[in-house]
Amino acid sequence: MIETMRWNEGFVELVDQTLLPSELVYKDCRQVEDIAEAIESLRVRGAPAIGIAGAFGVVLGAGEIQEDDPDAFLAQLEKKFDRLAATRPTAVNLFWALSRMRKVTEESRGLSVEEIRGRLLDEALRMQQEDKEICRKMGSNGSELLKDGMTVLTHCHAGGLATADFGTALGVIYAAKEKGKKIHVFADETRPLLQGARLTAWELMQNGIETTLISDNMAAWVMSRGRIDCVIVGADRVARNGDVANKIGTYGVAISARAHGIPFYVAAPFSTIDRNLPSGEDIPIEERHSEEITSLAGKKIAPESVHVYNPAFDVTPHTYVTAIISEMGIAEAPYEEAFERWAKSKGLE
Amino acid sequence: MIETMRWNEGFVELVDQTLLPSELVYKDCRQVEDIAEAIESLRVRGAPAIGIAGAFGVVLGAGEIQEDDPDAFLAQLEKKFDRLAATRPTAVNLFWALSRMRKVTEESRGLSVEEIRGRLLDEALRMQQEDKEICRKMGSNGSELLKDGMTVLTHCHAGGLATADFGTALGVIYAAKEKGKKIHVFADETRPLLQGARLTAWELMQNGIETTLISDNMAAWVMSRGRIDCVIVGADRVARNGDVANKIGTYGVAISARAHGIPFYVAAPFSTIDRNLPSGEDIPIEERHSEEITSLAGKKIAPESVHVYNPAFDVTPHTYVTAIISEMGIAEAPYEEAFERWAKSKGLE
Repeated sequence: MIETMRWNEGFVELVDQTLLPSELVYKDCRQVEDIAEAIESLRVRGAPAIGIAGAFGVVLGAGEIQEDDPDAFLAQLEKKFDRLAATRPTAVNLFWALSRMRKVTEESRGLSVEEIRGRLLDEALRMQQEDKEICRKMGSNGSELLKDGMTVLTHCHAGGLATADFGTALGVIYAAKEKGKKIHVFADETRPLLQGARLTAWELMQNGIETTLISDNMAAWVMSRGRIDCVIVGADRVARNGDVANKIGTYGVAISARAHGIPFYVAAPFSTIDRNLPSGEDIPIEERHSEEITSLAGKKIAPESVHVYNPAFDVTPHTYVTAIISEMGIAEAPYEEAFERWAKSKGLE
Repeated sequence: MIETMRWNEGFVELVDQTLLPSELVYKDCRQVEDIAEAIESLRVRGAPAIGIAGAFGVVLGAGEIQEDDPDAFLAQLEKKFDRLAATRPTAVNLFWALSRMRKVTEESRGLSVEEIRGRLLDEALRMQQEDKEICRKMGSNGSELLKDGMTVLTHCHAGGLATADFGTALGVIYAAKEKGKKIHVFADETRPLLQGARLTAWELMQNGIETTLISDNMAAWVMSRGRIDCVIVGADRVARNGDVANKIGTYGVAISARAHGIPFYVAAPFSTIDRNLPSGEDIPIEERHSEEITSLAGKKIAPESVHVYNPAFDVTPHTYVTAIISEMGIAEAPYEEAFERWAKSKGLE
């Protein structure tokens, strides 16, 4: 498995995912601004990976502050938190990760600046390590849903590069493969930024999974031909009732899956579940530049000055979700009860 | 309205639709092979326009044959028919147009080669003129379904350039506008060849219709936000039971429309209805090159050697179709009965 990012004695190296599949290049990030830019421009993307990158961003931010007084240091660190929190609004893992980092600072009263910096780095590295273990556990849990010879449809990219290294939706497929099951994947290309074509197809082929690439609008037809056994996607935020925010187009896939009686699974770590939000209606949906739709590879593919609507995510109502797979197990409706059980078993309120 | 193609004293000029929206260029077609190539490479596309182009292709083919003996001439003309029939399999209008041209040759016994050539040209020009009238009648019929202020979602391009000049699905919108109704259109970009972005958005803007461009996978989300009042698409072939073959992705749009209680209309001339086919299962679906998915504007957007499935069309079952609009009127289920009524009123069996 390729590591999405790594700590290299003072700076972060992360795979520049905008260059894939042509080039596999690690980009150095030495300042909080480098991380913020990498998140905003999707050099690093995928809810769990954004969370880890955000945590490392705090570490880099802490390194930038020229201040020996702990209180003054922490006051300045707030601005770094703010910068990172302003990058992308939809995925909750970023806010969850920043909140864990802030908790470290709150528990650092009486420590020196150098000691606080060390604790922040420890926490970021811990989060990265935990993600590796969580994704493997989630994959193992989800792999029970897959039988040898099945064909899975996935949308966008919820693979290793969207996490520390193993993936959520694709992690389920990797775990099934490790158990000796042969799985074929149909990958939606996922307009506008083609994460399915550029990242999912590439990563699956790297890992020896037979993959067929289609454009997003073919998914319903492929389902109608009886070629899909189930859908597995990742998530950027899951509300308390089980509504799922994920890459734009996920909702349409869920509707088509329902119309064909095909199970629709969501794979996401517990940290993606936002128990503060009653429903998906409350999830902020990022809208991105119209150029993502009107240009491709520097070439105009639509008329100048056309109006564009470019939401980066949509929300799939929980009624379309057959099950949610996490490191805690497999939840079915009613989701709120399952999430409460998971929270209790983690010792949370 | 822009004329999609025109007869210019011995050759055909047709808008090269692969160059839009950057350039509006008429390409000269002087031989049957030029027309065949233009159809195969989608310089001319859209079921009614392909039919007219095919008819002009026969005219050009007839001009190429150096033969004064009518029987020998007609025998050689068969090869031109075969070449044109082999270009694209799904749209029935091509075969309908070729069949009309063949009927002219069958009714030409006793005529000279020059006279046959003249009759073939007359028939092609008549088809083009008829299409202009049919589309205007269809538009007028369909416009009754649209109220002032409505928002219509369309998929692919069923506009003027897909016909002689007025369009089918977009013709309905143009006719509503002529009646003083303000209509807003959401246009799916329509991967892989982006006819929605390149042609629909461009043509609607040329004709003063407010247009918002989205990627295909956004349609369901836009519907869920209550922003779409109805869907109108064209068709490449309609089976006797009302099943509709149209550009890939149409089926997914129909499923989403149904899930949101939004009417799904198909606008197609009577010549698109293939009463020989009992259902959509019998419609041949063209599969096209994988490069249409893996490359864009000459740039690779997917890994080398990835498997691709690239059907150019899908079939929407009649149960998803709220109504079919033609020059004959507006049909609702059961479609077979409505089509029989239309056929009878045209004096057909």
